[in-house]
Amino acid sequence: MIIVMKSHATAKQIEDVVQWIESVGYKAHPSSGVERTIIGAVGDNRDKAVLKYAESLPGVEKTMPILKPYKLASRESHEGDTVVNVGSIGIGGPEFVVMAGPCAIESEEQLLESAYVVKKGGGQILRGGAFKPRTSPYSFQGMEEEGLKVLDAVSRKTGLPTVTEVVNPVDVDLVESYADMLQIGARNVQNFALLKKVGHARKPVLLKRGMMTTIEELLMSAEYILSSGNPNVILCERGIRTFETSTRNTLDISAVPVLKSLTHLPVVIDPSHAAGNWKYVIPLSRAAVAVGADGIIVEVHPEPEKAVSDGAQSLKPEKFYQLMDDIRVLAKAMRN
Amino acid sequence: MIIVMKSHATAKQIEDVVQWIESVGYKAHPSSGVERTIIGAVGDNRDKAVLKYAESLPGVEKTMPILKPYKLASRESHEGDTVVNVGSIGIGGPEFVVMAGPCAIESEEQLLESAYVVKKGGGQILRGGAFKPRTSPYSFQGMEEEGLKVLDAVSRKTGLPTVTEVVNPVDVDLVESYADMLQIGARNVQNFALLKKVGHARKPVLLKRGMMTTIEELLMSAEYILSSGNPNVILCERGIRTFETSTRNTLDISAVPVLKSLTHLPVVIDPSHAAGNWKYVIPLSRAAVAVGADGIIVEVHPEPEKAVSDGAQSLKPEKFYQLMDDIRVLAKAMRN
Amino acid sequence: MIIVMKSHATAKQIEDVVQWIESVGYKAHPSSGVERTIIGAVGDNRDKAVLKYAESLPGVEKTMPILKPYKLASRESHEGDTVVNVGSIGIGGPEFVVMAGPCAIESEEQLLESAYVVKKGGGQILRGGAFKPRTSPYSFQGMEEEGLKVLDAVSRKTGLPTVTEVVNPVDVDLVESYADMLQIGARNVQNFALLKKVGHARKPVLLKRGMMTTIEELLMSAEYILSSGNPNVILCERGIRTFETSTRNTLDISAVPVLKSLTHLPVVIDPSHAAGNWKYVIPLSRAAVAVGADGIIVEVHPEPEKAVSDGAQSLKPEKFYQLMDDIRVLAKAMRN
Amino acid sequence: MIIVMKSHATAKQIEDVVQWIESVGYKAHPSSGVERTIIGAVGDNRDKAVLKYAESLPGVEKTMPILKPYKLASRESHEGDTVVNVGSIGIGGPEFVVMAGPCAIESEEQLLESAYVVKKGGGQILRGGAFKPRTSPYSFQGMEEEGLKVLDAVSRKTGLPTVTEVVNPVDVDLVESYADMLQIGARNVQNFALLKKVGHARKPVLLKRGMMTTIEELLMSAEYILSSGNPNVILCERGIRTFETSTRNTLDISAVPVLKSLTHLPVVIDPSHAAGNWKYVIPLSRAAVAVGADGIIVEVHPEPEKAVSDGAQSLKPEKFYQLMDDIRVLAKAMRN
Repeated sequence: MIIVMKSHATAKQIEDVVQWIESVGYKAHPSSGVERTIIGAVGDNRDKAVLKYAESLPGVEKTMPILKPYKLASRESHEGDTVVNVGSIGIGGPEFVVMAGPCAIESEEQLLESAYVVKKGGGQILRGGAFKPRTSPYSFQGMEEEGLKVLDAVSRKTGLPTVTEVVNPVDVDLVESYADMLQIGARNVQNFALLKKVGHARKPVLLKRGMMTTIEELLMSAEYILSSGNPNVILCERGIRTFETSTRNTLDISAVPVLKSLTHLPVVIDPSHAAGNWKYVIPLSRAAVAVGADGIIVEVHPEPEKAVSDGAQSLKPEKFYQLMDDIRVLAKAMRN
Repeated sequence: MIIVMKSHATAKQIEDVVQWIESVGYKAHPSSGVERTIIGAVGDNRDKAVLKYAESLPGVEKTMPILKPYKLASRESHEGDTVVNVGSIGIGGPEFVVMAGPCAIESEEQLLESAYVVKKGGGQILRGGAFKPRTSPYSFQGMEEEGLKVLDAVSRKTGLPTVTEVVNPVDVDLVESYADMLQIGARNVQNFALLKKVGHARKPVLLKRGMMTTIEELLMSAEYILSSGNPNVILCERGIRTFETSTRNTLDISAVPVLKSLTHLPVVIDPSHAAGNWKYVIPLSRAAVAVGADGIIVEVHPEPEKAVSDGAQSLKPEKFYQLMDDIRVLAKAMRN
Repeated sequence: MIIVMKSHATAKQIEDVVQWIESVGYKAHPSSGVERTIIGAVGDNRDKAVLKYAESLPGVEKTMPILKPYKLASRESHEGDTVVNVGSIGIGGPEFVVMAGPCAIESEEQLLESAYVVKKGGGQILRGGAFKPRTSPYSFQGMEEEGLKVLDAVSRKTGLPTVTEVVNPVDVDLVESYADMLQIGARNVQNFALLKKVGHARKPVLLKRGMMTTIEELLMSAEYILSSGNPNVILCERGIRTFETSTRNTLDISAVPVLKSLTHLPVVIDPSHAAGNWKYVIPLSRAAVAVGADGIIVEVHPEPEKAVSDGAQSLKPEKFYQLMDDIRVLAKAMRN
Repeated sequence: MIIVMKSHATAKQIEDVVQWIESVGYKAHPSSGVERTIIGAVGDNRDKAVLKYAESLPGVEKTMPILKPYKLASRESHEGDTVVNVGSIGIGGPEFVVMAGPCAIESEEQLLESAYVVKKGGGQILRGGAFKPRTSPYSFQGMEEEGLKVLDAVSRKTGLPTVTEVVNPVDVDLVESYADMLQIGARNVQNFALLKKVGHARKPVLLKRGMMTTIEELLMSAEYILSSGNPNVILCERGIRTFETSTRNTLDISAVPVLKSLTHLPVVIDPSHAAGNWKYVIPLSRAAVAVGADGIIVEVHPEPEKAVSDGAQSLKPEKFYQLMDDIRVLAKAMRN
């Protein structure tokens, strides 16, 4: 932490800041520039929240953190790329992985039909929601455990590993007993009780960035899971909230190279929730391949016009096949 | 829901949209303007999510919702102002209510000292966190049940009713047994499992707006609690996330008159989390009075330089007394 | 400027950064912490843009500026409050100043009627636009020089000093010859050609914050005017663009105390453009008084239902009188 | 325009709205739903700003625009893709076009060396700034006319057509006499005086989206140029301002397919200003190809460590060659 003094700060104020820094357990290193003095607070305690108070001391202009607040998630602690296995599929390695399926599980017929589309197109993992976090209490909230059973049955029939969302800490064990990967949705990215709980699970976790979560906060949320003992975390960029309303969210495509430089964890993109409209899903998926993501998670529905949720952003089967063709061509070009 | 057709939409496309609308249970009312046709989809089902799919039909330009998605929270359903009682204190009535106390409960001594400051200054409700949602897993996570016992003990000694945060559905019964009001923090505003659970509590709920939450979404989150059976919800504006970084968040002061026009629920302001710096807490609290809020919730700490969290935004006792003096003068001027 | 090295940075990389810093004219002060080395770049050249390149050097993690980039606008360079005189009215002193009038000047009748309302209500300065920056090329673009003549005539009849917008550098001399204060609109806050030009004017400048402008950038824009020789700048917060759409913009009320701590220049609020709806103008104006602003600029129109622009956010005369009553009561309470 | 009445609106209020709509020159089409009445205001006047006032009428809940406010820029008015020729290079056709060069023109040597790099790598158009809009008045403001002469000389020597920024309406004729395309920078996207002026130029215009400009506003700014008589406009997405600070701006990659569906104008991407760091420029450029943009504009500098501006985001020659190799491979894959 660097503490920047005001240009008119007195020697007494500087001395007081130095003493306060040492009183809370850090070493103080003052250094004078042409216009002002700065004071480094040095120590190995990663929780420097307490130092923030320095901004309230007389003569202090601002504080600036130096260290990254996450450790296990950082590339400094783990230089090589982490590959997370979901069933038999590795994410984060050479293959571009497509997770696809309907937003919500509506029936065994609907999910099975979706799964055959995913498989036929070449998708590797089946997605489908049993617990649905909906903005409105009057919207369909998911089939819950019944949906998990359907997911499991369809997985056995098709051989596709599965990912599904969990929203309540009390359901983690249940979801884990049916699915191959647990998804933490965008609205729960800072639901720390839930993060700690999936940090104790043995299945991998797909952690979605919140619509107003910074990249650093996303890595801190991953750190909750990692530091609880679960090393298998996949990060997912799914669009952030901005002033632009022509898409549901603004896909932060730059987050992929930024995350790749900061962390060893795999990074995938969810173009469906970013766009909110199936028309934009194909070009955004192509961009995901080209920018260097490890995969995508997309919504596919055999009959989107009858979907109970997110029909507008779901691909019909023929569009999904076209998407997969585009991805194959670009993924091949990228490997050359 | 209004469905706007493209200017070149064909009669066949219009007819197909009409038929689709009726196939999902609504009546279609097409109407032609100079440049394009619009089609109203009329029905009394509040969950119109399914109609959003119309954007994927050929010839459709966009859809526009007409109805507000919340009902119990709306002023249309309940014209007068709701007053929520926290212990013996009414929020939403003529009195401007001040809830104050430390960010985190650190010990009985610390909380008791804070409570005496709150009481001496004229604050009506004591705040203090036992379960702390922290961005970093390495930061202090709160005293948990031990903290709730301290809160209860201090409440009995001082006679101040209390508000404290709950972060996990499994803890709701426990927190309710100790505190007079349950707080849902900004990061949990769309933790629907938690909202449903406090919707079944008998204590009132202080619902904080998330840093990413629109006013409409905040009202939808209130609707979750109200529709689960708990009518006592207080809304709290605490700053939203924007591009501006000179304050921790951007206090959306306009949210107060906007909410007052849309809902009958009380609205309070948290200037401490909005500002992130105690220097700005006093002017923002004055603005809260002047704009017509029902109260504020502020952080006060006997020794902020030793606080385990949020010391930079906590008021020292003498600043809190000055704040209360300012509030009294303005609240009196507002009543004239 | 502080340059933070990566934790694995080599001694050679640190040495290379030191040499590069010195090659571009600064002194380098390296200092080693527990986990990484930081290097201060010290020099008195305020344009440190060139140092930003250090982020591209091997082993560098990030750069962090220490100095504020503005000088003349800062409170460090000028401790007391600046009072700017517009005609006979001082802004930035003890009096809360109300600038009011129609968005656009439409005719002498309309402006004169508006001016009488402003005067009767107790407003001190007349506003009215002759050059209108409109999002659409098909909207009314203002009466231009004809409008300036009307403004001047009405000012003479009523004795009210005037403020009006200028949008093109070539019009600055013309506008200056008719009005008492030049307004730079939100969309021109970084129109540096225009800022330099009004920096050479002899009339004061009302500089509106852009909807996308940080507080630091606003002060840099003021610095353009100040450093060109015009010391009379008034800053105006008028709402920033965020994800919230229930108001036209989000009034950043905290900008007032933040600016008051950073600069000596007067700060006023424009609640009309922030809210976009007259209903919210009165509570936001009260908040402006309470938070410590030096004044407001509001839209008043004798017949808003016939206004060529911004009718929805203009106050009718009776609402303006009510606003002025509220302001008087609160301004008096604030002085006590 | 649709006017939505409140659910409790009276027949009298509805009638008053109908009469008001007709008094301002539109036809009113009321229509009653289950819960509320909506009223269409039909007319062919594209400037519907005046109708916005309806929100102030008693009983009105909100207004919703139906028509797009732009016309010449829309795909409805011009179905095929427009190809804009810059010198001999067509943008918007089958070829992916790369515009490259230094941020600022610093000397003939520097620009010439840059141009040879651009040419050798296969770039088609040379960029370079003579008039530089800088946040700080203390930063280098460009070589101005001297820089234009350098640009012209280097263009003659290398055969590369050129693009350069113009910031003041009085300089448009001058810039046009030297450059092949005029650039309107992000900060001037709503500088309507400048837009009108380049609308009368005979050279094409590269219009950059502002950092807080919506896609609709960008198209309205293009409409200013088109409606002034200049049909040759290229739109440029260069990142928008959001809460995320790990990149200089957030590249809104979705803007490409959204714009492609709304307008016939070519769309290019500026990855350098979006990223603010050369490391991310290559992956973002690949994404630009894959998402379907017509080209990119990137910063290249022979010695970025000595650049007077934006050194951190400029590519060195070898990185530029690598970028061009990646683009060739992906552009070829896209054509298959």
